[in-house]
Amino acid sequence: MISSIEESPLYRMANPRSIAFFGASSNMAAMGSMLMNSTLEVGFEGPIYPVHPRDEVILGHQGYKSVEDLPEVPDLVVIVLPRRIVVETLRACGEKGIRQAIIVSGGFKEVGDDGIESEKQLAEVADQYGIRILGPNCLGVANPYTNVCTTPASFEGDPGFIGLASQSGSFVIQMYNYLARNSIGFSTAFSVGNQLNIDLVDCLEYLAVCPHTKVIALYIESINRGQAFIEAAQRIVPHKPIVALYVGGSETGRRAAFSHTGSMSGPDHIYDAVFRQCGIIRAHSITEMFDACWLLGSLPKPAGNNIAILSHSGGPGATAADICGREGLNLPSFTEVTQERLSPYIPSTGNANNPVDLTFTRDIRDFFLSIPQILMEDDNIDILLIYIFMPSSMMAKRMRDMGIPEEKIAGTQDQMIQSAGEIARELREKYDKPILAFTFRGMEEAINKAFIQNGIPVFPNPERVARALRAMISYYKQAEQNPTP
Amino acid sequence: MISSIEESPLYRMANPRSIAFFGASSNMAAMGSMLMNSTLEVGFEGPIYPVHPRDEVILGHQGYKSVEDLPEVPDLVVIVLPRRIVVETLRACGEKGIRQAIIVSGGFKEVGDDGIESEKQLAEVADQYGIRILGPNCLGVANPYTNVCTTPASFEGDPGFIGLASQSGSFVIQMYNYLARNSIGFSTAFSVGNQLNIDLVDCLEYLAVCPHTKVIALYIESINRGQAFIEAAQRIVPHKPIVALYVGGSETGRRAAFSHTGSMSGPDHIYDAVFRQCGIIRAHSITEMFDACWLLGSLPKPAGNNIAILSHSGGPGATAADICGREGLNLPSFTEVTQERLSPYIPSTGNANNPVDLTFTRDIRDFFLSIPQILMEDDNIDILLIYIFMPSSMMAKRMRDMGIPEEKIAGTQDQMIQSAGEIARELREKYDKPILAFTFRGMEEAINKAFIQNGIPVFPNPERVARALRAMISYYKQAEQNPTP
Repeated sequence: MISSIEESPLYRMANPRSIAFFGASSNMAAMGSMLMNSTLEVGFEGPIYPVHPRDEVILGHQGYKSVEDLPEVPDLVVIVLPRRIVVETLRACGEKGIRQAIIVSGGFKEVGDDGIESEKQLAEVADQYGIRILGPNCLGVANPYTNVCTTPASFEGDPGFIGLASQSGSFVIQMYNYLARNSIGFSTAFSVGNQLNIDLVDCLEYLAVCPHTKVIALYIESINRGQAFIEAAQRIVPHKPIVALYVGGSETGRRAAFSHTGSMSGPDHIYDAVFRQCGIIRAHSITEMFDACWLLGSLPKPAGNNIAILSHSGGPGATAADICGREGLNLPSFTEVTQERLSPYIPSTGNANNPVDLTFTRDIRDFFLSIPQILMEDDNIDILLIYIFMPSSMMAKRMRDMGIPEEKIAGTQDQMIQSAGEIARELREKYDKPILAFTFRGMEEAINKAFIQNGIPVFPNPERVARALRAMISYYKQAEQNPTP
Repeated sequence: MISSIEESPLYRMANPRSIAFFGASSNMAAMGSMLMNSTLEVGFEGPIYPVHPRDEVILGHQGYKSVEDLPEVPDLVVIVLPRRIVVETLRACGEKGIRQAIIVSGGFKEVGDDGIESEKQLAEVADQYGIRILGPNCLGVANPYTNVCTTPASFEGDPGFIGLASQSGSFVIQMYNYLARNSIGFSTAFSVGNQLNIDLVDCLEYLAVCPHTKVIALYIESINRGQAFIEAAQRIVPHKPIVALYVGGSETGRRAAFSHTGSMSGPDHIYDAVFRQCGIIRAHSITEMFDACWLLGSLPKPAGNNIAILSHSGGPGATAADICGREGLNLPSFTEVTQERLSPYIPSTGNANNPVDLTFTRDIRDFFLSIPQILMEDDNIDILLIYIFMPSSMMAKRMRDMGIPEEKIAGTQDQMIQSAGEIARELREKYDKPILAFTFRGMEEAINKAFIQNGIPVFPNPERVARALRAMISYYKQAEQNPTP
């Protein structure tokens, strides 16, 4: 276990002062060019050295004919070359004194036969020179805090709090947009590929001490160093939650994992036991994994599992109540004080029990602020779930009916959305209890975005809320039972 | 059991030749006005008679002071008035000869006490005059084929194939947009409310013989006529699938259902047994319910549960394989012929096993057409699942890199999307096997819409695909085991 982030073999990969690229060229469509381009796009500030036998200028940077020609020993080299020349390239890097390499090239262990042999040769060179390798067959690292991005597209949105270690490069690069849509993002993400001499355990240890990482996500096809993994996880979990997706445990997942990264997976129940033993939250899909991370990394710890549901529609309220119950949450009655405080807001057709059902919203400030405040101040309630149904088209129609001139409708609507966002922020900042929302409208609708951008997660259905809450609560429960060792 | 749709008490509600509205007024924001407005908006062609004591013109239509003044006996009356005058209004309608009423007003059984008494009085009047009532406490009916829409907003998109009977009005009105986003829609949707003398069973019987309904969806908080429900469902299921969401079976769902529609729910295991006995597919959420309906109503019957997964990313392929396996699907090996036919399309870094992993797409026609064709022609394969990752931003970037001038990029992109849509349609029309897709990008992205609009369902994650397929396969399996009685 490392005691400071600088001790990690990943430190100079995620925080390099200079980077050399093999495989970048004047051909913009080449993989190597794309990787270098991403790093440029995100604004990496240190020196970048493309190495190419012929091209003299690559993406506006001076090209170097060989690694020997580099004016310094770069902290990191990123290699995406045909497999047959990777080993000799790594050797030249070793001779130069380079000690950190990301090898993106594939065709090694994962293809079997001579790929296995090539990977052995890589390992020998790495051993000989003491080079730590991320990969091969990986996409490297994305660190929005140091503007490093060795994946073929660059990250989107603001730097975030999710530290990812993934045996799939896709779950780094293809999640940039997915997370940015939810106003969350990676603190640092590692694509580990074939895990030659850096594996998930090294990533875990790095992310454990990474100050930007609030929650660790793992996409696992197999674990190689079982005991080290368990020891690392057990030390980390009391301080920082770990959420893991393991796909190798089903027969179909096992075969897919094998052809993907050459992983030899183990049976599901063993991984289940390992995760339980470590207090790792197990997700069963990418969606579940990032949902749990979203809550664990951004919401306050709930004092218990008592949830209030607020809706202006009976059906959505009832289905949310049902699924919350099935996922182990309680819907307690409100205190008498709460009931009294609620009553002026509830129309005669409505219902002041839990779930609160207004049937219709007279004033959006009542629905989104006054009533939530009352519910948050009820000692019986640990968590609040709000059903959002405020379609832009319906808002516009109502304004038209109210006689608001056509040219003012868009502006008024923007103001309403902005004010809803401010309300969301106010609520979130005022109370130390988790608040979440769900909707059946498109996630791209303005009101949903306003809530998300102001720190209230919105989900496209109540079951994702309930499952993520279950994961969150189970993390805190076991963390209490197993305090810091 | 009815033998023709005209025998149903719902027939003249879903297919009225004329409608009277109580509660519509010159106040556009009144609930009654909104309901009448929806019917106008969707283009109902028969006479519409607003009844109002004072207002002479309502939404451009002549107002009538009382029901006695109406020039004919309308097929349907829609009542949304304060509870205290609903009974006398219904009596006047009865005197006039009206035999179909939708009562939207709430405040009856669902509020308890004097509400129960009022509902009894309603029932007496209904009995006396032979009036069939949808409601009270409902939103009535939406039939896009006859342009009837008594809900406070009007339906969106094209007429569809899902027949819904719902104890929640929200799950009629708030699903218009949800379904339209998926290019699906209701054939006819009923909000049954308190089920005074028309209940879920009547709706089931109507939808069973409705020619536009390919699949029936039920949102259930309680079933009143158990035996009739079972008998109806058992007759229907061999011809037409039924998918049901029952929320009353969990403690939290039971209490929510009671305060919503005054329903007395029964234990989960009884409903489970009833559904199983009838061959009804049980969904556990609204999302699951409509996902299953989507597949059952729009895709061909799969010959078995053998699925091929096509991806250009190992991780998404492996997670899809894993979740498909967990939901009871098989990922068989391909035939030798298929493997040979695939090989020219698979780069050396890729994988021609199932899941097929291209690692990158050289030509979108290969990925979306040529390879799917090969997979669909493999006798081992019953179903195809495609992973879509083709972000507009990335397409634009590649075009820029290729030197396509900026002003032509949007047009070229539109052409590519259109051609992807045409490919989707070609595939769907050529093969009698289900094809589906998933993505982690926003559902609003052009490529996803193009697929959906051309008949290939796209889901935002593989677990929804796998669960919907499981539901679909289980429907056909039990339909085979229990042939038409």
